[in-house]
Amino acid sequence: MAEPFVSEVVIERLPLYLRMLQFLEKEGKQVTSSQELAERLGFSSAQIRKDLSYFGEFGKQGTGYNVMFLQRQLRRILQIEQTRDMALIGVGDLGRALANYQGFLEQGFHLVALFDSAPQKIGMTVGGLTVQPMTELARVIQERKLQVVILAVPAQAAQQVANRLVELGVRAILNYAPITLSVPSDVRVYNIDPVIGLQSMAYYLK
Amino acid sequence: MAEPFVSEVVIERLPLYLRMLQFLEKEGKQVTSSQELAERLGFSSAQIRKDLSYFGEFGKQGTGYNVMFLQRQLRRILQIEQTRDMALIGVGDLGRALANYQGFLEQGFHLVALFDSAPQKIGMTVGGLTVQPMTELARVIQERKLQVVILAVPAQAAQQVANRLVELGVRAILNYAPITLSVPSDVRVYNIDPVIGLQSMAYYLK
Repeated sequence: MAEPFVSEVVIERLPLYLRMLQFLEKEGKQVTSSQELAERLGFSSAQIRKDLSYFGEFGKQGTGYNVMFLQRQLRRILQIEQTRDMALIGVGDLGRALANYQGFLEQGFHLVALFDSAPQKIGMTVGGLTVQPMTELARVIQERKLQVVILAVPAQAAQQVANRLVELGVRAILNYAPITLSVPSDVRVYNIDPVIGLQSMAYYLK
Repeated sequence: MAEPFVSEVVIERLPLYLRMLQFLEKEGKQVTSSQELAERLGFSSAQIRKDLSYFGEFGKQGTGYNVMFLQRQLRRILQIEQTRDMALIGVGDLGRALANYQGFLEQGFHLVALFDSAPQKIGMTVGGLTVQPMTELARVIQERKLQVVILAVPAQAAQQVANRLVELGVRAILNYAPITLSVPSDVRVYNIDPVIGLQSMAYYLK
């Protein structure tokens, strides 16, 4: 079934709904409502109903949403029913923390390769994986058909590495470098920059 | 001068404008335009002009924006002209990487205290700071009047620690725990969760 065009801000809320449903499941809940999700997430219930309505009818008037069913539907919509392999580039302090993070695999993202350009890091084992040189990047990405890469390199190297990734067919970059990457419109970039968060919160401080 | 109510999505774009202006400054540019900022950031120039117009007139028709002047104005608007002190709670792999990150201080956020609940971590030095026990939290936050805290504790501990921070008067929490925190409306939370990014990008993959 073809899905309608849905704006990015809606898509970015779907993982939050999924995470909350997983949390409710752990609490032993089998059924929830847009009101409950709204209270827990700090959104309005109307927004949640509208977001979900782009993709179908997932609840019944008066009985709410089945927690497990809605999780499965969200996983289908987000295309995360199967585990996806990904690579990490840049094994500094942050890269090491990410390579050791269990939360990726729990949520269906499997880190399968680490790369760094520093000779002294090549061959090191981090999070059960061996750090490989950048000269291996093309081979590994193409052989394993990797579409997702985590970029944890310094800001001054990030655009150049991103260009390389785009050439190699990577379609999604989780970017930890504190710069705005320039990529073609069919490549997704999701930026993670704590400074942006701190600065935007500072606006609200006295 | 009283500033008008401006929506959160606008405020969250201001640090991106600031970061791009810093980048243009490093490139040696003294003047820029909403068109140039738009191309570099992937926004529309109309949106950039509209966002800035909430706060005043910063450019001249036909001559654009002075790069240094607009940076200073954005720092004033975001209230980041002076360095702000902050604490970090949770010195695991991620917490260590954050404690060692130079980018906070470069952008005006000074990490001054580290806390962890694990006895074996107390007294360790990380990023030049000594890890303190949670029993010192109240004293340090109050003595140093800390309003900003980075939360890098496990998900199951995060809400409880956040409650404590709210009681102690903390007003801004950079939350790395993969849960939606519940806090009063006068406390800001900015969530950093790479899984949310990966899942929302997966929607766009084939």
